[in-house]
Amino acid sequence: MKIVVIGASGTIGTAVVEELGSRHEVIRAGRNGADLSIDITDTSSIQSALASVGQFDALVSATGSVHFGPLEEMNEEKYDIGIRNKLMGQVNLVLIGRDYIADNGSFTLTTGVLSHDPIHLGSSAAMVNGAVDSFATAAAIEMPRGLRINTVSPGVITEALPHYAPYFRGFEPVPAAKAARAYAKSVEGLQTGRVFHVQ
Amino acid sequence: MKIVVIGASGTIGTAVVEELGSRHEVIRAGRNGADLSIDITDTSSIQSALASVGQFDALVSATGSVHFGPLEEMNEEKYDIGIRNKLMGQVNLVLIGRDYIADNGSFTLTTGVLSHDPIHLGSSAAMVNGAVDSFATAAAIEMPRGLRINTVSPGVITEALPHYAPYFRGFEPVPAAKAARAYAKSVEGLQTGRVFHVQ
Repeated sequence: MKIVVIGASGTIGTAVVEELGSRHEVIRAGRNGADLSIDITDTSSIQSALASVGQFDALVSATGSVHFGPLEEMNEEKYDIGIRNKLMGQVNLVLIGRDYIADNGSFTLTTGVLSHDPIHLGSSAAMVNGAVDSFATAAAIEMPRGLRINTVSPGVITEALPHYAPYFRGFEPVPAAKAARAYAKSVEGLQTGRVFHVQ
Repeated sequence: MKIVVIGASGTIGTAVVEELGSRHEVIRAGRNGADLSIDITDTSSIQSALASVGQFDALVSATGSVHFGPLEEMNEEKYDIGIRNKLMGQVNLVLIGRDYIADNGSFTLTTGVLSHDPIHLGSSAAMVNGAVDSFATAAAIEMPRGLRINTVSPGVITEALPHYAPYFRGFEPVPAAKAARAYAKSVEGLQTGRVFHVQ
């Protein structure tokens, strides 16, 4: 398979590339992607990046940022960061990517445990994760040409604990390699409309 | 209690006003609200409407629209309708309403079954419902002053079947009065961070 991995140099993306790269042709994409430069907040960037790839079999998004901040200080503009990036950035990868993906191809988006197991500062992450999980569940039933769509919803990644441990006390860390297997299940299996929780 | 009901003249709102009106002072709000005019897509309208009410004990949002359309025809602009209205419209009611709500007051927002039980044309409704459910779950744990927040997630409302039946074949209809009791549980009970599914 020809697989576009967006966010390929991130903690999860690196593990996804390692998991899938031995068996498939992987195109490493990202804002400064090794193979492909793409900015998911800019639809014209998505358009031109995917057009340059041509037809592919799977798209994995392991990217998307949100604003973390105390609810007391959150406002419409701060929620908009996550809406434009991790929510609509990933949705636009699907909306634009469907013009380039082969029959029976798959989209795999990234959400996370905060949708239903919240933490201090995490109301935007929760909102966006919940939105993407539900979008994918619904989009799956309307996909044409045998196309599939799933999300992977990991807990806090072990390799990210040096930065995130104080915010995720008590959460079971998930090794990136374990999360990566959920992406492989989505890409190489046949399920659709699923939220793959990795905890 | 002094309770602001937004969307008070809608199918659900009418039932909520009937359920809560016998025991509480209810302010019927909406775009052409009987007591209060408010446009949830306009933060200055929310601001001035809630300022005119002064302190209140509970805010119920039984409003919020999204674009229904086939996934094939959905694009960023069509998803933005629901993001601006049912998602950020309701979130902004909380962000602005917190300046006017009394200690131990409650916010109750409306989502719906499509977040996890999707239909044709419903990908935007799913996205927005999932976003609001997860937002409320997360916002609940950061609320100051004993404030609470829940959502009510009803199935298709019996009274709306004349318009919606063809889209919800096989879904168990929910009488508006039954949905209204979930709003009463949210407002008059003590739970927070809950999604009250009414099916």
